[in-house]
Amino acid sequence: MFESAEVGRSVDKKEYARRVAVLRTRILKAQHALAGTSLRLVVLVGGVEGGGKTEVARRFLDWMDPRGLRVEAYGEPSDEEMERPEYWRYWRTLPPAGRGAVLVGSWYTRPIVSRTFKKIGSGDFDQALDRTLAFEAMLVREKTVLVKLWLHLSKKEQRRRFKELESDRDTAWRVTKQDWDFSKKYDRFRGVCERALTKTSTAESPWTVIEAVDRRHRDLAAGEAVAAAIESALEAAKKPASKPRADRSKPAPVSVLSRLDLGKRLVGDHAKKFERQQTRVALLSRRLRKKGRSLICAFEGVDAAGKGGAIRRLLGAIDVRNARVIAVAAPTDEERAQPYLWRFWRHLPRLGKTTIYDRTWYGRVLVERVEGFCAPEDWKRAYGEIAAFEEELAESGVIVCKFWLQISPEEQLRRFQDRVKTPFKQYKITEDDWRNRAKWDAYQAAAVDMIAKTSAPEAPWTLIAAEDKRWARLQVMKAVADRLEEELG
Amino acid sequence: MFESAEVGRSVDKKEYARRVAVLRTRILKAQHALAGTSLRLVVLVGGVEGGGKTEVARRFLDWMDPRGLRVEAYGEPSDEEMERPEYWRYWRTLPPAGRGAVLVGSWYTRPIVSRTFKKIGSGDFDQALDRTLAFEAMLVREKTVLVKLWLHLSKKEQRRRFKELESDRDTAWRVTKQDWDFSKKYDRFRGVCERALTKTSTAESPWTVIEAVDRRHRDLAAGEAVAAAIESALEAAKKPASKPRADRSKPAPVSVLSRLDLGKRLVGDHAKKFERQQTRVALLSRRLRKKGRSLICAFEGVDAAGKGGAIRRLLGAIDVRNARVIAVAAPTDEERAQPYLWRFWRHLPRLGKTTIYDRTWYGRVLVERVEGFCAPEDWKRAYGEIAAFEEELAESGVIVCKFWLQISPEEQLRRFQDRVKTPFKQYKITEDDWRNRAKWDAYQAAAVDMIAKTSAPEAPWTLIAAEDKRWARLQVMKAVADRLEEELG
Repeated sequence: MFESAEVGRSVDKKEYARRVAVLRTRILKAQHALAGTSLRLVVLVGGVEGGGKTEVARRFLDWMDPRGLRVEAYGEPSDEEMERPEYWRYWRTLPPAGRGAVLVGSWYTRPIVSRTFKKIGSGDFDQALDRTLAFEAMLVREKTVLVKLWLHLSKKEQRRRFKELESDRDTAWRVTKQDWDFSKKYDRFRGVCERALTKTSTAESPWTVIEAVDRRHRDLAAGEAVAAAIESALEAAKKPASKPRADRSKPAPVSVLSRLDLGKRLVGDHAKKFERQQTRVALLSRRLRKKGRSLICAFEGVDAAGKGGAIRRLLGAIDVRNARVIAVAAPTDEERAQPYLWRFWRHLPRLGKTTIYDRTWYGRVLVERVEGFCAPEDWKRAYGEIAAFEEELAESGVIVCKFWLQISPEEQLRRFQDRVKTPFKQYKITEDDWRNRAKWDAYQAAAVDMIAKTSAPEAPWTLIAAEDKRWARLQVMKAVADRLEEELG
Repeated sequence: MFESAEVGRSVDKKEYARRVAVLRTRILKAQHALAGTSLRLVVLVGGVEGGGKTEVARRFLDWMDPRGLRVEAYGEPSDEEMERPEYWRYWRTLPPAGRGAVLVGSWYTRPIVSRTFKKIGSGDFDQALDRTLAFEAMLVREKTVLVKLWLHLSKKEQRRRFKELESDRDTAWRVTKQDWDFSKKYDRFRGVCERALTKTSTAESPWTVIEAVDRRHRDLAAGEAVAAAIESALEAAKKPASKPRADRSKPAPVSVLSRLDLGKRLVGDHAKKFERQQTRVALLSRRLRKKGRSLICAFEGVDAAGKGGAIRRLLGAIDVRNARVIAVAAPTDEERAQPYLWRFWRHLPRLGKTTIYDRTWYGRVLVERVEGFCAPEDWKRAYGEIAAFEEELAESGVIVCKFWLQISPEEQLRRFQDRVKTPFKQYKITEDDWRNRAKWDAYQAAAVDMIAKTSAPEAPWTLIAAEDKRWARLQVMKAVADRLEEELG
C-alpha cells in the first residue's frame, strides 16, 4: 500500500505557484458551495510522525475560509471524556452542516498506537477497526464529505526529517521522545497501519496516501484531494434523493406486543411492594460511581401509556443530584445540523450518573418511519446504527435499560378523554396524539420490528403491560433494580 | 436575618394535603405558561447542612413537569471546568428560555465555604459577592425568574437532625465528616451566610429564608415561593417592553478614531519585519500552558477593514492544534434562548489554548445598537456586563487582546468594488455591507463610545490604522507579541 508513496514525487517552485493559484480559487469555491448545503466536511490527517500533519492542517486554514473550518487535535482525553464512551469526544467535535473540520489524530490513533506497542492483540485491533468502519459509514450516510489523508515517509526519510528538525533551534522542540520511539518501531508501525488502511479503505471513504517527502507535493496533493472530494459530493447531492414517504405497515396478528398480557393488575399492598423496589434502586444506584458505571433508562411506548409517571417514580429513587431527564422533542437547529444520534450522544451521563430519556433515538424507527420524516433507507439502516451505539455504551460501562410501555387502544381513548376533562392534565394532550392514534397499526408494526431488531443481551427491551399504571410503575422499578443488581453484583 | 426562621413553624398532615393539592395545580400551570415565553426559571436552593436541600430539589421534580426542569448539583469542578473561569460551569448549565433548573449549591458555595474556613479574607469575600450580584442582575435582566431559597436550621436543630439521620442505617451515609465540620463552625458559618444573604438580597432577586425544621412547612414554603415568583414574572412580561429602535448618533468631530493616522504605510523589508513578529508570537504562545494561561484575541472593525486577513496571519503563528477561530454570525436557536453572552462563554479556551473571535460580544453595542436589534436599555447596560465578563477572563488567567480595525470610507468603497469584481472575493460582500456603509456615522459613533467605555488595563483596545493591509497585519502581530511578552514574562 505504501510503495506507491515512495517514488520520489516532487513539485518545483514554479509549478507549485501555478497550481496553488488554481487550487485556492477552486477549494474556496467548493467550501462556499458546501456552506449552503446540509453537507459537512471532515478531513482526517493521519500518517507517520514527521510527515507534517499539523503543517498540512495549517495549510487548509490558509487556503480556505477559516470562519467555516476548524482544526481539532485530540490529545489526552479530559476527565469528562474519560468518563464517557471513547467516541464521545469525536461526536462532540463534529462540525455542523455547512462547516468543516480538519482532524489531526482521530479515531485511528488509539488502536494503531496500542497495537504498535502491543497493548492490544490483533482481535481487539480488528474490532476497533470495525467500529471505525461503522462510524464512518454512518458519517457518510449522514451527509459527511469524509476525506482521509495519510502522509507517508519511508523509514530513511523519517529519520532524516527528525534529524533535520533537531538541528534547528527553532524546530528541535517538535521532535519528541515519542517520535523516536515510533521511529524505532517503524517496521511494526508500518505493518499495523497497512492493515488499518486496507481494512478501512471503502468505496465511500477511501484513504489517499500521500508521499510527504517534498512539502510542495504533499500540500498540493492534500488540497487537491479535498477539493475533488467536495466537488464530487456537491455533484452527487444534486441528484434527487429518494423521497421520504409514510410507512403504513400492519403488525402481524400475533406479535410480542399482542401477546403481552394487558390484564395484569396490582393486587395486595401496593405501597409496600413499591417501596421495596424503590429502596433497592436507591441503594444500588449509589454504587454506580464506585463501580465505574453509569445508567441510561430509555422510555418508549404508546401515547398516554404512562411514561411520565413511571419516570417520575424512578426519579424518586435516584439521588436527584445524579440524575437527569432528557425530554426528546423536535430537534433544535444545532441538532438538526448534525447526524441524528448526535443529540443523544451529547447528553450521555458521566460516571456514576443517570440519564433518563423520555422518548429516545428509537424515534428514528418509530415516528420518523411512520410519518415519513426520513427516507426508508434511512430508518432501515438505523437499526444497525442504533445497535452499534448501544454496544458502545455497554462496552464503556453504561448500563442500558429500555422500556416499551404498552396499553390497549381502548385504554388509550379513556386516558385521552380524561386528559381533555381534567384541567391540570390538559397540557398532556395535543392534536398530534389524536393523529397518531389514527395510525395505531402502523406504530404497532414499527414497534414490533424495532423490538425484534434491537434487543441485545447488553441492552434488552423490557416490555411493560401498562394498562394498570401502578403495575407498570412497579415493573419498571423492579426491572431497573434487577438490572442494577445483575450488573453491580 | 435568621431569627424569623427560628419560630417553630409547622404544618399538620391535613393542612399539608389541602395546600399541596392547590400548589401542584398552580405551579404546574405556571411552569407550562413559562414554557411558552422567553423566560427561564432558576431556583437556587441553599442553606445549612441538614436543612434538606436535595429533598427540596426532589420535591420540585415531583410537583413540576420533569421534562422542563433539571436539577444541577455542583460538586468538585471537572478538569475542563478548572481550566476556565469559575463561572463557566454556571453558564454552561443555564437552562434555555422556557425551561428551568434547580441548583443545589451554586455560585455562593465557594465564597461561603472559603470564608467560613478562613481561606479567604473579608475583602475577597465581598468581592466574590459583588461578582454574584452582577451575575444575578444580568440574569434577571436577561429574562430569568431567579428564586433564591435558603433553608435554615438553628444550631440545636442541626445537631438533632444529624443525629436523627445517623441513627437510621438507611440514612446514616448522608451525614458526612464535612457536615460535622460545618456544625462545629456553626456560629461562624451563620455569620458569613448572614453577610452573604444581606448583601445579595436585592429588589429583583431577594432571598427567601425558610425554616426547615418541619419538612411539610419547608416544602410548601419553597413551592409557594417558586409559584409566586413565576406568576409575577409572567404578569410583568405582559407589559409591553420598550421598543427597540435604531440608533443614529453621530460621532464627535474629533474622536479616538478620527485622530488615528490612516496614512501609515509599511516601508522597507516587509517580509522580514513580519517574520520577526510572527516568530515572537510563535515562541511566546507555546509558553501559555506552562504558565497556566490562555489567550483570547477579539477582532472588531469597519466592514472590509481586513479582519479576516489579520486573523489568518495570526493563525499562521500559533500552533493550529491549540487555536480556534469563532466566526460570530447570527445566533443559533439554542444561543437565542440564552443570555447574549452565553455564546461567547461556550467557546472560552482551556489552559494553553487560544480562541480568536471574528466579531465578538461587542456586537451588542455596535450592530445591535445601530440597527435597533435590542432595546436601548439593553445595550446601555451591556458596557458594564462586558467589563465584568472581561474582568473574569483576566482574573482566571486569560490574556485578552482586543482590536479595532479602522479604514476610511473611501478605502472601504475601493475594497467593496474590488470584491464585486474579483470572482474569488465575491463571497465576502453582501447586501448588508452596502446597507451598513450607509450608516457609517452611526457605526463610528457606536465604536467611539465602545472604546471609551470598555478599555480596561486588563483588556485594552488596540486601534489599528488598516488603510494599508500589510501595516495593519504587522501591528496586530506586534501587539499580540507585546501583550504575550508582558504577561508571560
